Amino acid sequence: MMQMRDLAKSSGEWLKGAGPHSDVVISSRIRLARNLVQFPFLAQATRDQKQRVLDIIRERLVAVPESSKLTFVELTAADPVDRSLLVERHLISRELADGDWPRGVAFCETETISIMVNEEDHLRMQVLRSGLELADAWRQIDRVDDALEAELDFAFSAQLGYLTACPTNVGTGMRVSVMLHLPALVITREIEKVFQAVAKVNLAVRGLYGEGTQASGDFYQISNQRSLGKSELQIIENIESVVPRIVEYEKIARDRLMAENRASLEDRVWRALGQLRAARTISSEETMHLLSAVRMGVNIGLIKDLSIAAINQLFIHIQPAHLQELRGEVLDTDERNVERASYIRSRLNGSASESH
Amino acid sequence: MMQMRDLAKSSGEWLKGAGPHSDVVISSRIRLARNLVQFPFLAQATRDQKQRVLDIIRERLVAVPESSKLTFVELTAADPVDRSLLVERHLISRELADGDWPRGVAFCETETISIMVNEEDHLRMQVLRSGLELADAWRQIDRVDDALEAELDFAFSAQLGYLTACPTNVGTGMRVSVMLHLPALVITREIEKVFQAVAKVNLAVRGLYGEGTQASGDFYQISNQRSLGKSELQIIENIESVVPRIVEYEKIARDRLMAENRASLEDRVWRALGQLRAARTISSEETMHLLSAVRMGVNIGLIKDLSIAAINQLFIHIQPAHLQELRGEVLDTDERNVERASYIRSRLNGSASESH
Repeated sequence: MMQMRDLAKSSGEWLKGAGPHSDVVISSRIRLARNLVQFPFLAQATRDQKQRVLDIIRERLVAVPESSKLTFVELTAADPVDRSLLVERHLISRELADGDWPRGVAFCETETISIMVNEEDHLRMQVLRSGLELADAWRQIDRVDDALEAELDFAFSAQLGYLTACPTNVGTGMRVSVMLHLPALVITREIEKVFQAVAKVNLAVRGLYGEGTQASGDFYQISNQRSLGKSELQIIENIESVVPRIVEYEKIARDRLMAENRASLEDRVWRALGQLRAARTISSEETMHLLSAVRMGVNIGLIKDLSIAAINQLFIHIQPAHLQELRGEVLDTDERNVERASYIRSRLNGSASESH
Repeated sequence: MMQMRDLAKSSGEWLKGAGPHSDVVISSRIRLARNLVQFPFLAQATRDQKQRVLDIIRERLVAVPESSKLTFVELTAADPVDRSLLVERHLISRELADGDWPRGVAFCETETISIMVNEEDHLRMQVLRSGLELADAWRQIDRVDDALEAELDFAFSAQLGYLTACPTNVGTGMRVSVMLHLPALVITREIEKVFQAVAKVNLAVRGLYGEGTQASGDFYQISNQRSLGKSELQIIENIESVVPRIVEYEKIARDRLMAENRASLEDRVWRALGQLRAARTISSEETMHLLSAVRMGVNIGLIKDLSIAAINQLFIHIQPAHLQELRGEVLDTDERNVERASYIRSRLNGSASESH
């Protein structure tokens, strides 16, 4: 099994900064919610039933294509830093990390696939890909779903579709999310217009770590609100048609900022990099904010010699659990802020040069 | 005569960062106010009388020791940028720069001596020195005063002393000011205590450019309130005894910050330098604020390879008139902010290294 320390040091495939529209679209995610027909939903299940759900699903994971590459983490046995690490890596939800019942997660080496057991539903499968890659992500998760469905009996109604703990997931059990980096639309204050347009086509906007979280570092997740009454492909098509328009808005805003406010835009970008290279103590919130400006600076060609992959990785590595895992000890907030600043300096100093 | 462009490029003796307590005391200044007995005070004088005052004093300046090294600037003939340059250089007051009557200033190459004609009084002589050098400054200005008094008939009352346009200057006509850099006392919020202590011994605290101006970049001027009923040496002794105690408070505050908040202090210092090196547009106010932290960083040994003299000079060179004079053209605020950032980068990049 993969060690958590190795996971902390590495970087998921979805962070590589490749794929269509990857200057604006960080990642595409599809997750499917499924429940075993022979057990009650988790809210009604006893601890023993939850344990059996976990055991059964874990055992059947061998059916998943390339299952030999899966790492399974029993979360009851994992320490808090390891659990937070998995949250920061987008491999599990905060809810699954914080639970106290039998639960676990399986994920593959590239981190494209993760399978949560006993989150809100018995089974939540996720595929996470770099850039706007929904069609590919769908093919991948569909194969995982088919493989598991051949082994497990999923709760399904001919009339409604897949049955889920929360009615909003009934039907396809699918949520499609695309994570976007929209710094220029935030600067030009046009981001609200995007939200309004997105709401009209029944899509939701969320923060970086899903439902109820704040957008931080100018990252926004666009996802479907409905999973019922539409096919999986219709849901994907809806998002596939909307996202490129948002990407276009963002690029127009970047171009306009460069044309009309070049000094102020360059100032923002270079100061952000300057602060990151200089800071001796820094919160993760401020880091996200500054990295966001640096990422835009690389996208618009101001900063050379710094890759999007390196910046994407920094966004993850500067999170609390990653810092502690990399350092090998538990750190309080002040210590983390110092460690974070030191880590960032080691990654950014001497690496980026100016474009003129 | 010295060209204004050369003045802009050079640096006054008082900026060299030497002299007693020069890590905290930027400069010592003594000015004497005098009026010619045969003319009314300026508020009552006609334009013609003001012109005669100017002509007479200008003519008698040859009496001043080393007068051949004096540059005389007729301010009615000077353009606005040149006049502002002299204000920024602390060679004339803002009031003298903005006037529209016959007036002028003579100053020596090292900028230690400046003699303003037709400011609030017919004659205002100033000696400006680096560090806490009041005794020396007094000897120097006393010689200038004696030389001029041998040539000119000063309004003097046996009972009151020298007569001046404003009653607060009657007596010695002397104002002694010491400019202090007190960043640590500002951070620790002890600066108010200093103000209270200073007020108790009848000293005033002012901003960087004298009466009515805000302290900027953590610079404060301590000066005497009274010029009557005390001899020149008593006024100087009072300030000479108070200033080293403020210097001591500031150093204790710096030591305490280093002992108790080292990460946060280092963070402040390095981020300030990082911002200055990175900015593409910056106001003079922000620059003063950041340079103040950098200056402290050099003082406490965090920043190496950057001299106090270079930083002191930057404080002056980043002012609006200096930037325009150095660039050789009139710039609006936005253009100045870009020019300022560019000037600062050219001065700071590649020059400072870390102490570890």
